[in-house]
Amino acid sequence: MQDTIAKIRQFRDERDWKRFHDPKNLAASIAIEAGELLELFQWMSSEEATRFAAENQERVSEEIADVAIYLIELADITGIDLTQAIEAKLEKNAKKYPVEKSRGVWTKYTDLK
Amino acid sequence: MQDTIAKIRQFRDERDWKRFHDPKNLAASIAIEAGELLELFQWMSSEEATRFAAENQERVSEEIADVAIYLIELADITGIDLTQAIEAKLEKNAKKYPVEKSRGVWTKYTDLK
Amino acid sequence: MQDTIAKIRQFRDERDWKRFHDPKNLAASIAIEAGELLELFQWMSSEEATRFAAENQERVSEEIADVAIYLIELADITGIDLTQAIEAKLEKNAKKYPVEKSRGVWTKYTDLK
Amino acid sequence: MQDTIAKIRQFRDERDWKRFHDPKNLAASIAIEAGELLELFQWMSSEEATRFAAENQERVSEEIADVAIYLIELADITGIDLTQAIEAKLEKNAKKYPVEKSRGVWTKYTDLK
Repeated sequence: MQDTIAKIRQFRDERDWKRFHDPKNLAASIAIEAGELLELFQWMSSEEATRFAAENQERVSEEIADVAIYLIELADITGIDLTQAIEAKLEKNAKKYPVEKSRGVWTKYTDLK
Repeated sequence: MQDTIAKIRQFRDERDWKRFHDPKNLAASIAIEAGELLELFQWMSSEEATRFAAENQERVSEEIADVAIYLIELADITGIDLTQAIEAKLEKNAKKYPVEKSRGVWTKYTDLK
Repeated sequence: MQDTIAKIRQFRDERDWKRFHDPKNLAASIAIEAGELLELFQWMSSEEATRFAAENQERVSEEIADVAIYLIELADITGIDLTQAIEAKLEKNAKKYPVEKSRGVWTKYTDLK
Repeated sequence: MQDTIAKIRQFRDERDWKRFHDPKNLAASIAIEAGELLELFQWMSSEEATRFAAENQERVSEEIADVAIYLIELADITGIDLTQAIEAKLEKNAKKYPVEKSRGVWTKYTDLK
């Protein structure tokens, strides 16, 4: 992971792009790329999306990478360790969604009804 | 990274949530969480966003983690190695945005004019 | 429509919020609210989403309105007539997706394969 | 507005596309198009975005229309009157953001601190 972060930094700095990389611009870029990733599956059923991803792995891979690069850049400039952030969030989610009450249901939306 | 992926899988499987995790649902979830991340900075200037992120690191960290978890899950179920995907995309981007022509400018949008 | 635009303007101006309403902030706000709208249906099948919308019309209505308000504000500050914009885009789409070739298929994605 | 809705319906039905238009797919499409709209302003400052919108009105107009068309289609298939939805939400927002407390500030985020 540290090696990947170093490559992303180098790519950015060779182009002097850090000047555009405030947290708001990076968050906007993550949302933009997330939209492109979702577009791959726009009108598909679950089954079609699964088949499409299997048959177009490179295309899916590129869109995932676009989101990941900006996400890593955002974590990097805000001094956040991505691995630690993920593990802390998993622990918080484990309390919010206890195994016994969450099995096979999406609790949050059940609550709405 | 492998360790983090293992923890995410365990969290998911203890709750039997894999049944909801087709590529389309995960891509939608990434877009939803990306919106929440962007909302942190909704009306801020670049400077305000930078200061907000410094003063609210835990909050930013949680929103980044939400995007990252779904992104890792999507890569995982589609058989994509996230590190390889990022490095392949950096190489592709390096050809698309050569250092000499890209320094300090966002080429794509300059092209529009 | 003109009456609705006038009410939206009044709401904004009473709060002196026009100062935050540059096109980028409004576009970001549209993306944020679009994420909240999508979240309503996050893990649902098509059938579940259709039923949810029928049973929770007020909730869907509020999220649709949030997107619509920012969209109308963006059109308003950029001098765009929304009705004309829609009709011009329908005409352009009609050329891009001729009836005979588009019936029952999502042409754009078929092209990918 | 009724006339515009009728044209959008006709465009959809001539292509037999209603079959893809469940609320979830339309909400996803709104998020996708919102991402494309935001992309127009991706790395710009507020001032650059304002100038870009003035100089590229047709391009902005098309992206706004794409969001608007899916939004109108979603309201239409869920039986929601868009004008009423907007006016009801403005009334609700007026209570949430009273004029005296909201003037010139974005209350929600001030609350975070």
